[in-house]
Amino acid sequence: MRDAYHEALDTITDELVAMSRQVATMMQRASVALLEVDRERAEAVIEADEEVDSINQDIELSTTELIALQQPVATDLRMVVASMRISATLERMGDLAQHVAKTARMRYPDPAVPPQLTPIFREMAEVADRMAAKMGAVLASKDVELAKEIENDDDLMDDLHRSVLDALLADEHLGTVNQAVDVTLLNRYYERYADHAVSVARRVIYLVIGERAAS
Amino acid sequence: MRDAYHEALDTITDELVAMSRQVATMMQRASVALLEVDRERAEAVIEADEEVDSINQDIELSTTELIALQQPVATDLRMVVASMRISATLERMGDLAQHVAKTARMRYPDPAVPPQLTPIFREMAEVADRMAAKMGAVLASKDVELAKEIENDDDLMDDLHRSVLDALLADEHLGTVNQAVDVTLLNRYYERYADHAVSVARRVIYLVIGERAAS
Repeated sequence: MRDAYHEALDTITDELVAMSRQVATMMQRASVALLEVDRERAEAVIEADEEVDSINQDIELSTTELIALQQPVATDLRMVVASMRISATLERMGDLAQHVAKTARMRYPDPAVPPQLTPIFREMAEVADRMAAKMGAVLASKDVELAKEIENDDDLMDDLHRSVLDALLADEHLGTVNQAVDVTLLNRYYERYADHAVSVARRVIYLVIGERAAS
Repeated sequence: MRDAYHEALDTITDELVAMSRQVATMMQRASVALLEVDRERAEAVIEADEEVDSINQDIELSTTELIALQQPVATDLRMVVASMRISATLERMGDLAQHVAKTARMRYPDPAVPPQLTPIFREMAEVADRMAAKMGAVLASKDVELAKEIENDDDLMDDLHRSVLDALLADEHLGTVNQAVDVTLLNRYYERYADHAVSVARRVIYLVIGERAAS
């Protein structure tokens, strides 16, 4: 039988997993809004961000409360602290999905991404979705091997990020200055989103490896 | 006489103040590197970031240790948790200063910012420096009025950010695509840096107001 304390810890983990799925859905929809030029979907993503912000605040409060009431030490404390950090990172990922959606909305009914670059952005969106899905699974399972895959996926994202910049610089007539500005920022949003997924994966790896080393 | 516990808390505050000064110096130098096209200074900023990252890790460890050993509750615990969050934010501000420096280095000996935009970026740099200086003072003094000034300064930063975008979009021939990309990202780096200073200020306000409400 689990005690109240471990139940509280499990609840926080469940919240993180749910939050990561929510963030993943936001980015997935933001990408569709961007690439299919879908304003309603963009609006939905923009609204959803408030909920993610509020989950983050809840997690900060409930982890602080858990520390105060249960006074965890060693591995347990490290897990609680890591949860707080992971929650802040997920909140930031939600912001980035919102930025993508806002860019789509701002240019509507024009596409923010010029047609020549749509295929690369579609690939970035796919890599982002894959990384976020694995991140959710890693948070639930603490699977170190899967966490490491996220780092490999990030290399792919970095390559795509580089390709977008190269394409932008190779062709002065790729689009308007507006589009160059949008593409530059969108490119950064996806890259940052992926970086954050890696940082979540690394925290989980560190926790598990630390636990193993300590046990 | 202060007990060991409050001494440990004070030490963490001192570390945060020192860290914030270090980050402020990094951004100040990064701006000089950018606007005076000074490669050596850019290199120095890029190297300095490693130290800030390591201070952040130290603070995470020492706050976790403080929680484990001293088991703070209520206001004290909230302060420790806030310190951890503030440290992560300062680390991110250091990253942004490093990004500015890297952009300067990447384009050297060319200026990353076209001459027409240098005056606006000089203003952004000044606002960033002012905000960071106030942030350091707020961390040391917990002065709520000063913390609120940081929020006002941020409005100025948002205006400058808007001006850069407007200037970029108003004139297709402002510079090369390379410069448009650089300017778009630099503009974002300064804006994000200012946002982070605001988030630190808000955390301090919340702590102080919370303390007042609780006492």
